Amino acid sequence: MKLSFSIPFSVGLSIAIVATMGLAASHAASSSDKAVAARKALMQMVSYNAGLLGAVAKGEADFDAAMVNSAATNLNALAKFDTVSLWLEGTEQGAVDGSRAKPEIWNDTAGFADKFAALEKASADLIGAADLDAVKAGMGAVGGACKACHETYRGPEN
Amino acid sequence: MKLSFSIPFSVGLSIAIVATMGLAASHAASSSDKAVAARKALMQMVSYNAGLLGAVAKGEADFDAAMVNSAATNLNALAKFDTVSLWLEGTEQGAVDGSRAKPEIWNDTAGFADKFAALEKASADLIGAADLDAVKAGMGAVGGACKACHETYRGPEN
Repeated sequence: MKLSFSIPFSVGLSIAIVATMGLAASHAASSSDKAVAARKALMQMVSYNAGLLGAVAKGEADFDAAMVNSAATNLNALAKFDTVSLWLEGTEQGAVDGSRAKPEIWNDTAGFADKFAALEKASADLIGAADLDAVKAGMGAVGGACKACHETYRGPEN
Repeated sequence: MKLSFSIPFSVGLSIAIVATMGLAASHAASSSDKAVAARKALMQMVSYNAGLLGAVAKGEADFDAAMVNSAATNLNALAKFDTVSLWLEGTEQGAVDGSRAKPEIWNDTAGFADKFAALEKASADLIGAADLDAVKAGMGAVGGACKACHETYRGPEN
């Protein structure tokens, strides 16, 4: 690895650390593979936080205001993610192993953004939920946002 | 699965979808296992976005304003994540398979929060970076924030 001499040593060291972390975490070589792996990590985070809220709504977990607020806040942050660096051009299903992204993601960017906006709205409504009833009332919109996006923009299992 | 009769059908359906998604994504049964998996997904997202920026700083990728802005924005959002629902009590290294979380995370919550705050600041400085020099200048603080947190709060490889 060659670093430009214009990069101070401390910066070069930090970059090397970051580069090593990326390699270790993704086990992927190409930028397309890395993007698909990162999208899966994003969806896993979405699923985790929605799952915490769903467990409360179903009565499988007790209502805990701090936990519900944390999950809703994180879900909201995930819905606001900038998609430019994640859904790279040329990473649709069939073009990259593991991808289930439909071409509609790139052909209908406004529609794709609308789906994330729906999740952003639904999760925002759960931030600071006061009680179990508020969680139950809000989860329909969260689940609906997930489903609507997957139906339109996610292809079949690989 | 029993759903309370107080939950409307549409909500129940959405909850079921969300619950199924969670199961498929995590392959984990206990809430501790799920939390550790979600933390790894978070760190993978951090690594991915920092890696995109690091590649630009190293000259391995061309400076692309939209891509840099997207990666910095997402990194900043990740740094702001609420940790309550991710670093659950009792999920330190040794207590849960795959965890590398040191007890200091729970014994020194202010210090742990400070590390995320450092990443939040470093990534904010890269949002809207105008050119390659700005990325090079900002990556030292990003790498430093990653390193500082790992040194204090992450245990050895399992």
